[in-house]
Amino acid sequence: MEKMTWMEFALKTDAFVILPIGSMEQHGPHLPLNVDSVIAENFAFRIAEELDAVVAPTLKYGYKSKPLSGGGPLFPGTVDLSGLTLQTNIIELIDEFYKDGFRKIFIMNGHYENEAFIVEALDIASQKYGDSLLLITSNWWEPLSQETIDAVFNQRPFPGWALEHAAVTETSLMMYFAPDLVREERIIDTKGTEPCCYMKYPIEQDIIPSTGVLSTAFSSSAEKGKLLSDTAVKKLVSILSQYCHK
Amino acid sequence: MEKMTWMEFALKTDAFVILPIGSMEQHGPHLPLNVDSVIAENFAFRIAEELDAVVAPTLKYGYKSKPLSGGGPLFPGTVDLSGLTLQTNIIELIDEFYKDGFRKIFIMNGHYENEAFIVEALDIASQKYGDSLLLITSNWWEPLSQETIDAVFNQRPFPGWALEHAAVTETSLMMYFAPDLVREERIIDTKGTEPCCYMKYPIEQDIIPSTGVLSTAFSSSAEKGKLLSDTAVKKLVSILSQYCHK
Amino acid sequence: MEKMTWMEFALKTDAFVILPIGSMEQHGPHLPLNVDSVIAENFAFRIAEELDAVVAPTLKYGYKSKPLSGGGPLFPGTVDLSGLTLQTNIIELIDEFYKDGFRKIFIMNGHYENEAFIVEALDIASQKYGDSLLLITSNWWEPLSQETIDAVFNQRPFPGWALEHAAVTETSLMMYFAPDLVREERIIDTKGTEPCCYMKYPIEQDIIPSTGVLSTAFSSSAEKGKLLSDTAVKKLVSILSQYCHK
Amino acid sequence: MEKMTWMEFALKTDAFVILPIGSMEQHGPHLPLNVDSVIAENFAFRIAEELDAVVAPTLKYGYKSKPLSGGGPLFPGTVDLSGLTLQTNIIELIDEFYKDGFRKIFIMNGHYENEAFIVEALDIASQKYGDSLLLITSNWWEPLSQETIDAVFNQRPFPGWALEHAAVTETSLMMYFAPDLVREERIIDTKGTEPCCYMKYPIEQDIIPSTGVLSTAFSSSAEKGKLLSDTAVKKLVSILSQYCHK
Amino acid sequence: MEKMTWMEFALKTDAFVILPIGSMEQHGPHLPLNVDSVIAENFAFRIAEELDAVVAPTLKYGYKSKPLSGGGPLFPGTVDLSGLTLQTNIIELIDEFYKDGFRKIFIMNGHYENEAFIVEALDIASQKYGDSLLLITSNWWEPLSQETIDAVFNQRPFPGWALEHAAVTETSLMMYFAPDLVREERIIDTKGTEPCCYMKYPIEQDIIPSTGVLSTAFSSSAEKGKLLSDTAVKKLVSILSQYCHK
Amino acid sequence: MEKMTWMEFALKTDAFVILPIGSMEQHGPHLPLNVDSVIAENFAFRIAEELDAVVAPTLKYGYKSKPLSGGGPLFPGTVDLSGLTLQTNIIELIDEFYKDGFRKIFIMNGHYENEAFIVEALDIASQKYGDSLLLITSNWWEPLSQETIDAVFNQRPFPGWALEHAAVTETSLMMYFAPDLVREERIIDTKGTEPCCYMKYPIEQDIIPSTGVLSTAFSSSAEKGKLLSDTAVKKLVSILSQYCHK
Repeated sequence: MEKMTWMEFALKTDAFVILPIGSMEQHGPHLPLNVDSVIAENFAFRIAEELDAVVAPTLKYGYKSKPLSGGGPLFPGTVDLSGLTLQTNIIELIDEFYKDGFRKIFIMNGHYENEAFIVEALDIASQKYGDSLLLITSNWWEPLSQETIDAVFNQRPFPGWALEHAAVTETSLMMYFAPDLVREERIIDTKGTEPCCYMKYPIEQDIIPSTGVLSTAFSSSAEKGKLLSDTAVKKLVSILSQYCHK
Repeated sequence: MEKMTWMEFALKTDAFVILPIGSMEQHGPHLPLNVDSVIAENFAFRIAEELDAVVAPTLKYGYKSKPLSGGGPLFPGTVDLSGLTLQTNIIELIDEFYKDGFRKIFIMNGHYENEAFIVEALDIASQKYGDSLLLITSNWWEPLSQETIDAVFNQRPFPGWALEHAAVTETSLMMYFAPDLVREERIIDTKGTEPCCYMKYPIEQDIIPSTGVLSTAFSSSAEKGKLLSDTAVKKLVSILSQYCHK
Repeated sequence: MEKMTWMEFALKTDAFVILPIGSMEQHGPHLPLNVDSVIAENFAFRIAEELDAVVAPTLKYGYKSKPLSGGGPLFPGTVDLSGLTLQTNIIELIDEFYKDGFRKIFIMNGHYENEAFIVEALDIASQKYGDSLLLITSNWWEPLSQETIDAVFNQRPFPGWALEHAAVTETSLMMYFAPDLVREERIIDTKGTEPCCYMKYPIEQDIIPSTGVLSTAFSSSAEKGKLLSDTAVKKLVSILSQYCHK
Repeated sequence: MEKMTWMEFALKTDAFVILPIGSMEQHGPHLPLNVDSVIAENFAFRIAEELDAVVAPTLKYGYKSKPLSGGGPLFPGTVDLSGLTLQTNIIELIDEFYKDGFRKIFIMNGHYENEAFIVEALDIASQKYGDSLLLITSNWWEPLSQETIDAVFNQRPFPGWALEHAAVTETSLMMYFAPDLVREERIIDTKGTEPCCYMKYPIEQDIIPSTGVLSTAFSSSAEKGKLLSDTAVKKLVSILSQYCHK
Repeated sequence: MEKMTWMEFALKTDAFVILPIGSMEQHGPHLPLNVDSVIAENFAFRIAEELDAVVAPTLKYGYKSKPLSGGGPLFPGTVDLSGLTLQTNIIELIDEFYKDGFRKIFIMNGHYENEAFIVEALDIASQKYGDSLLLITSNWWEPLSQETIDAVFNQRPFPGWALEHAAVTETSLMMYFAPDLVREERIIDTKGTEPCCYMKYPIEQDIIPSTGVLSTAFSSSAEKGKLLSDTAVKKLVSILSQYCHK
Repeated sequence: MEKMTWMEFALKTDAFVILPIGSMEQHGPHLPLNVDSVIAENFAFRIAEELDAVVAPTLKYGYKSKPLSGGGPLFPGTVDLSGLTLQTNIIELIDEFYKDGFRKIFIMNGHYENEAFIVEALDIASQKYGDSLLLITSNWWEPLSQETIDAVFNQRPFPGWALEHAAVTETSLMMYFAPDLVREERIIDTKGTEPCCYMKYPIEQDIIPSTGVLSTAFSSSAEKGKLLSDTAVKKLVSILSQYCHK
């Protein structure tokens, strides 16, 4: 969308507008800070291609990452917005897309912790626009079937999504989407982090390994990334295409 | 706490203050609207008894329930605050407990959807008070071990926590904590709801069964409620007691 | 209301919903912190019984108590919300009751200082809903006639409402509503506090007696509590019943 | 203050700065909309003269007037801010006076309904500045003794402060402070309004007389205005002068 | 407007209401703090006279002055609101004028830095009221023609509007509008300040001359003030009068 | 910055972090919506290279464009945030960079209307961090000398910065920075828009030409873009480098 002129853009208002949301968050020694944005953006472009949709510029600053699913504020480079600000950004962008004539918005989320504030934004916007506006959101990992997960974790056990941070799925997707940004030689083995049944503040420095990796990325590959991408994109396209001609 | 005089209260500032947070949310035809509050409050009292802690009045209005884990705004009686307002209530109460001399606060949550806004409140408060204030939160179902879950779901399969709404665990806990409030004769069988990999607004009326039950409550019992309560309380007491004499 | 199922609740939308609002505030050595909530709640239940109305869960945290009518922040156990947050809670609950189908809301206030923020909330909500929503609020002491006040203060002079804090009227009402919570043996005599014609911050520690009692509670009785309750309830019922069949 | 140059102003930071707050509110057919501002401002100048204090520009837009003590939104010309905005204005001005070096601020209020939001602003500011900043507020009618009230109401009974709107005290003060603004020939007799024990929204058009006068202004005089002014100013000067050399 | 009774005011709703906005800001050793308010107010009265419009009480506290166009927070007596608060004041006043029946509002601005927040307020209000409300704003210096500027700067070069602070145009206008407030004997010569191509915080104390004068006021006169006033008023009246009978 | 790992990023905290801010705004038929972001970002990278600074991800959604300097909401594709939200984003990002250890932040602005809200954000942040944090902002056109402007406008007269929208300077910069995004064949001649001395809402559809071009882009070239870029970068580098080793 951002590369279009306003005249090109004005012709597309019947289509879905897709807003990718990522984060700036540590992803271990082998992945860059923008992993969640790169992934959300690449999913968005692939879905847009199938549906002839418009991709809005990615929100690259997301909500705070939680200590146990990403390291939170313990690592430099994790640059977050408050929940309220993320939510307000989304509501105002929905208002603007609506004013520009769009009636179908899909929010492609790449960062787990964003979810509650995306949903709050959609709820508030939906109370305003009612049936005149369709709002859908998904996280990229949600449409994956058990079969796909099994295929990806054929060498290592699946540690659960909370610990899949800078690990096999994200690393594989980055190898497929943006191989230049992956420092493969710095992938390390790591003892898996234990999930914890409570949350404590102030956050303790040693709550996760000092590398920021919660689960090893060994066994990642671009092929696995392609599999993850193809499966999720196909599923999301089939969901969204139901609404394309309404 | 609310039944104390201020002089009695003033003697307790070395202890944990426990703030239970629930919701007003439909829980099917057999459970009252205040299930989440009753459960959070009862956990709070049991923990307080073990730790000689103070229980603050329960926040009985929680955050919006999501359509697929409770029915959201589709049912009368679901009376919600916005995320921001819930968060602000919590932050201001933390400020007040701090001014009254407390340095250890535990938030006992009984409603899944509250979690993100409780955590945001704790994060913001913790940035203000730093190491001078200990803040801990847990949901009642998080400290449960796999063994306990297996014991409770000895007759029916565990549908996952998202669908355990007005189902076996909540009904069992209510049978144990507040049997008068359970309409046992209205427990119904229900085809389990399927989880969904995306969220859509406006919410469709038929997204969950018209009874508001996502998974049947058959096989619930006060004994199972006691087991759930005893196990979780024991675990939480052991966590909190580490900090009691600091 | 909180003990109803959603199906029971859904049948009551033609009735008034009554929202009691109290506070957590010091009430001397003989009364608990929740006096204002207990009183507001008991009034609400008595009115609801007469009018077949629904009582929503009490807001137990109120606005800051002023130094000269309750001790303000000088006493532990006074746990307040800011005016804005109290006001926002009320507005959001009105929104929710409206969405659930209610068109008549009565707010029963038990804490003097809440009043300005309740009124602001009603004004803002009323601008939104106009004639489609009836909003009424009263403090429990306002409907009392001079005769009732004279009858209650037959042994001690009436010090004015501002100083009637933890004194004869509140103590009598608590003796009637919740005798278990009254520590009668700790009722003390006290030199009356002088009202002051200005407000100064920071608040001086010695502005009110160290017990938190502004006026003695001697001469309180459950009979006087019943008289206060019966008189005010009768008056409020007669006011509200005018609107019951509209 | 506003007529000073910054260099003149910079010499006065040891003194009190006085901030008058009024309103734009109907005051019947014989008084202008700015009565509350004129009165607050005149009190401020008289006090400032005695104490060598600085008077800041008056906040001429106040909080909403309540229906039963001024006519509220029923009359054109009543131009109000919300409570939050009034409060925020006050807090920000306190911040600015503090940055400019002032450590003593007196807020002279001329409009009853402003009070709760002034007090909330002072409470919030005082939590920020603690003992380093003295904040005092008074309404002009609070320092009046019973003797003064008796002297002013020598011909008509005192209807209580809530109904003293556009009536004897305000009219007398305006006759003294700003006789040009009083339309004496339009002073009318009026049946006194009854106070009401509850507040209802939407506000009914006929809740107060169509003239906006709650109680007659007959018997007002500039002499009574002078008496009211002299008495209140003397009392307030004696209160504030205690703090002048600290 | 503030000197009207509500009945007089109610007859004027077909007219423009003019809201002047100024500031409290240092204006060198020869001008008072309220220069921007005095100028905005005087323009407003002159325009109102021509158009039979209503002038609302001036907002005397404006937005922060920038260091390089007025000295910002470096000088005592500069008493500012935040941008958000100024904006909220304006939006709420627009709401109130609208409720009172006005459909044409003109905001006469006297302080450069207010502009962005006035425009934001108008944009937000206009989204609410659409075509039913006409909102216009201008700064007093914008309608001036090059001829007028040349005539005023016949002795000194025009330094650009940013540096015309407490200089020839403002001093001339004050000599014409409020000669009593001009300390002519304190007008000083000053080396002109250089504009700067970036903004730096914290602001350096020596960024502008210690007198607060960015450009000398020598050559100012009441005649030049009258010329500036007459020219701008005439232009603004011709703009506004297009809308007077719509 | 976004392509770094957290470990690489952690080594750079002595350097400036540069935050580019652009907009999504119509730029005529020959330029894409993201012109302001592309330009701000390219300036940021060139400056960062000279100073070994870190470039944070660009804020691609800016504040509303004004009707007369870009077309405002009249054109599809102009997707704006409110002033408050832009300001809050900036404040929160400053907080985060500060927490990560940075003490020098430069905000490179590419969109005229952002300026007031960037400055408000810097002012608020600077009050919080005082001398411990250096904050600088500039618009790309401000450091240009008259000589450079004369050299660029050697064929067409300079219409003033307000009308230089999608015109010679922006088009030349885009030809230099991102030639693929310029549709040269769609550059049109256009009668220049007249600046206007007031702002009116609702905005009239015909206030600017229907193409969105305020001034022709003929005579643009990549060479002129390089000249503009080299000159401004050199100037900004010389300003910022003064602070590099402090």
